Amino acid sequence: MSLIDQKIKDKLYKIIFGTDTPAGKAFDVMLIITILSNSMIIIAESVEVIRNTYGMWLVVLGWFFVIIFTIEYILRLFVVKRKGAYLLSFFGIIDLLAILPAFLGFFMPQIRFLVIVRSLRLLRLFSILKMGRYMEESSHLLRALKASRPKITVFLFTILFIIVVVGSMMYVIEGPQNGFDSIPISMYWAIVTISTVGYGDISPQTPIGKLISSLLMIIGYGILAVPTGIISHELAHTSKNQGKKKNCPNCYSKFYTKEERFCSKCGTLLDS
Amino acid sequence: MSLIDQKIKDKLYKIIFGTDTPAGKAFDVMLIITILSNSMIIIAESVEVIRNTYGMWLVVLGWFFVIIFTIEYILRLFVVKRKGAYLLSFFGIIDLLAILPAFLGFFMPQIRFLVIVRSLRLLRLFSILKMGRYMEESSHLLRALKASRPKITVFLFTILFIIVVVGSMMYVIEGPQNGFDSIPISMYWAIVTISTVGYGDISPQTPIGKLISSLLMIIGYGILAVPTGIISHELAHTSKNQGKKKNCPNCYSKFYTKEERFCSKCGTLLDS
Amino acid sequence: MSLIDQKIKDKLYKIIFGTDTPAGKAFDVMLIITILSNSMIIIAESVEVIRNTYGMWLVVLGWFFVIIFTIEYILRLFVVKRKGAYLLSFFGIIDLLAILPAFLGFFMPQIRFLVIVRSLRLLRLFSILKMGRYMEESSHLLRALKASRPKITVFLFTILFIIVVVGSMMYVIEGPQNGFDSIPISMYWAIVTISTVGYGDISPQTPIGKLISSLLMIIGYGILAVPTGIISHELAHTSKNQGKKKNCPNCYSKFYTKEERFCSKCGTLLDS
Amino acid sequence: MSLIDQKIKDKLYKIIFGTDTPAGKAFDVMLIITILSNSMIIIAESVEVIRNTYGMWLVVLGWFFVIIFTIEYILRLFVVKRKGAYLLSFFGIIDLLAILPAFLGFFMPQIRFLVIVRSLRLLRLFSILKMGRYMEESSHLLRALKASRPKITVFLFTILFIIVVVGSMMYVIEGPQNGFDSIPISMYWAIVTISTVGYGDISPQTPIGKLISSLLMIIGYGILAVPTGIISHELAHTSKNQGKKKNCPNCYSKFYTKEERFCSKCGTLLDS
Repeated sequence: MSLIDQKIKDKLYKIIFGTDTPAGKAFDVMLIITILSNSMIIIAESVEVIRNTYGMWLVVLGWFFVIIFTIEYILRLFVVKRKGAYLLSFFGIIDLLAILPAFLGFFMPQIRFLVIVRSLRLLRLFSILKMGRYMEESSHLLRALKASRPKITVFLFTILFIIVVVGSMMYVIEGPQNGFDSIPISMYWAIVTISTVGYGDISPQTPIGKLISSLLMIIGYGILAVPTGIISHELAHTSKNQGKKKNCPNCYSKFYTKEERFCSKCGTLLDS
Repeated sequence: MSLIDQKIKDKLYKIIFGTDTPAGKAFDVMLIITILSNSMIIIAESVEVIRNTYGMWLVVLGWFFVIIFTIEYILRLFVVKRKGAYLLSFFGIIDLLAILPAFLGFFMPQIRFLVIVRSLRLLRLFSILKMGRYMEESSHLLRALKASRPKITVFLFTILFIIVVVGSMMYVIEGPQNGFDSIPISMYWAIVTISTVGYGDISPQTPIGKLISSLLMIIGYGILAVPTGIISHELAHTSKNQGKKKNCPNCYSKFYTKEERFCSKCGTLLDS
Repeated sequence: MSLIDQKIKDKLYKIIFGTDTPAGKAFDVMLIITILSNSMIIIAESVEVIRNTYGMWLVVLGWFFVIIFTIEYILRLFVVKRKGAYLLSFFGIIDLLAILPAFLGFFMPQIRFLVIVRSLRLLRLFSILKMGRYMEESSHLLRALKASRPKITVFLFTILFIIVVVGSMMYVIEGPQNGFDSIPISMYWAIVTISTVGYGDISPQTPIGKLISSLLMIIGYGILAVPTGIISHELAHTSKNQGKKKNCPNCYSKFYTKEERFCSKCGTLLDS
Repeated sequence: MSLIDQKIKDKLYKIIFGTDTPAGKAFDVMLIITILSNSMIIIAESVEVIRNTYGMWLVVLGWFFVIIFTIEYILRLFVVKRKGAYLLSFFGIIDLLAILPAFLGFFMPQIRFLVIVRSLRLLRLFSILKMGRYMEESSHLLRALKASRPKITVFLFTILFIIVVVGSMMYVIEGPQNGFDSIPISMYWAIVTISTVGYGDISPQTPIGKLISSLLMIIGYGILAVPTGIISHELAHTSKNQGKKKNCPNCYSKFYTKEERFCSKCGTLLDS
């Protein structure tokens, strides 16, 4: 490969994968617009009235985006150095899944579920949002969620246990004649209840069933408070320890961060 | 314009726009009463039984308030110095929208949606509530919400993604025969479910649909905890820095709070 | 009144109103049991099956408790010094309302709503719970709620505004043909939706109505986070400032409470 | 009993009750798998389609697990030193309940409710989860919940009072003709509403009923914030004092944390 080719490749790489140059930003904005438009078309296609009226246009636009995404995919594959790593990376697979269903659907048009696969392309937006402060913010959020994982695990396990036991109880008490056809259906009802969704497609009919439901609701109500408390606590905790902190050597008054040069309490020079 | 006219104008300005004088306060109280009464009448008019019985009275009272608001609008326009700025200001438009529909409706009585426009007058109450401590409190709330905007953006985007993907999945799995007529309808169902509203107008019928719904509810349940944690954290954070802040008199580097005695950048003694 | 009478009165006062003596505690426990039993009977009486089977017993037991409460009321009135103050106090009225409906119902048995008045006697339990630490805890809770009143006011006002405006919009968009008979009904629907209750007795039918509902749910979802954050923040805030705190005079490191005699950072003797 | 027997017993004890040795961990993993598989079979058995197709297999597998659990129970009883203590311990009873219903059901096959008892075996998983950090985390959670018990008690009592009073009111206002058949049913409706579940099986029909429901929803909405705030606050509070604490070596007055250098009671220098 000649040196000039390499230069063009590097330039393209900066545009397609980078976000710092004006051209790179323009590419990202274009990508956001095409991804959102593509999703709009997928959504619009599912509405019968729109499909009947503008069906032809939607098919044309759908193929237009598939061609754009195909060109983008080939370009990405062309400019990236470690091609294998990209192909198997999370976003590499997402990029492929955005175009594959169209070509597969050409031969097997009856496979309706490919619609879901196509809408997964929205995940690409997360790669673009990973710019500037959004990246920092979501990493803070993820760090807080990660730190509270053991607590959340204990919590989820407790909920699962409640769902299985209450589900079994309601199956026995209410039975198939009141809509609680099986334990899985009863567990579905328990989840609908404990999460306070409450569709009302299945609801207790017997007095004992209503009593148990009431207890489940009050427990679910109280349980709702626990993960909120956990996350709030972790959010506050992770932000406090974001930088390595030491006590002031003179007054030991408070932790200081790298950005502080003098103790704000006693005025001592700090070494950071 | 004579000097005496100007004096009357200034006095009226203080009454209408000010909140410090007794007359200004009385004007505000009167305005709150008229705005609330006007809203009551709009609401009462929509109830068929009341409309059939007191219809005539409601029309008369409605026009009575329109006349009062028109006089108020003319007075505001008369006393304010920068008339153009008022006309185009948020509250200037709100004040106009409170009287315009009545006159428009006189010629086009069939336009029912003007009802909404009239009830927007309630927004005026926010301008009156901007007194004393309520202003400070709501600014604290807004500051906390503003500070947590990047996190909330990441969060809302994640929810939107979940809604689109789960909406598409349920459209494919349940299909039109179970009420999931299109992806927008499925997305509406996903929002009803993830927000734990759960009307029950559409609910999953197939076992796989119920399984996915259960997962969505548990996720929605957990997700509910995240923004609460964010807001709580920001509220605590913004309040800590709520004190009157001044720049360091020596290095001007950063704002300091009452609790700091020395500048943490240059070590200068601060007077708090 | 002789001195011995006064002594008996004082003793009875300590038993009936006090909570420190063993007899006073026994009286409170008895009162809790009779109040709860009385409520049980009122609740049981409303169930048709129970009424038809044990109707006679319930009437007898109901009158039994009325007689007990009447004796208690007379005793309270007898032992209390400032009789007028008790008669007009909150609990004085509650105590009277517990027995009055029975005597009134004797002459006007058709007044069903007296049932509610009788169940208000449960409020008496709050006077008994005002013992030991529960009193302290609830005062902490009330103080936190009081401190967050301005914020909650701004918040409730915003919600009320949203309910009126969205209610008017849905009345115009959906109309009586879809169950949105009037603005009050639409406002009821808006409250059912924003509080995430979602009965499903009224639900949007038109596409625009569903779109507005979706926005309302997402907003309601976000708004749910605000008061939680406020209360959490105030709870933490009120507990921190529970005692008057001053900075350490040597190192200014941290606020100290009355209970601390030496600074925990630099060891300086503090004057509290 | 010979010494060799004792040695085998000790080894088995370490495997069955311990979690530190590789064999003990393997046993725990096996136990988790068998308990979860057993629950799966109980759940699967309740689904009619599965029962009709694989009924025979499920019965065989069910008995297979009963035999395994019986062997496990006998082994536990054999290796444990204080047999009586184990028999009457929480997990001892749980272990027995996992096998007893099968043998009882052999003679009385009509007792359907034994299904619930069998699914209680899932509680065993909590004994296994009590490993490593999960134990620490859940003890932190439990400590926070315990510390907030007085507040939660006041709170639950307030909710119970609201439910009884609103339940009575709605019973009188709506009455049996609108589904509010009795006060218990009205209380069930109040719980469904205040917990924001909202099945919609019972919903207010009269204007006054709808007004009271709206107030209940807004109150329930606000009340939801209180326990969350309490738990969050307690979680933060308990974690602050989580560090290893020692008594002051001089005055033994109070526990101190890592952040304190001098005892706040007597001024003694502490080693942290």
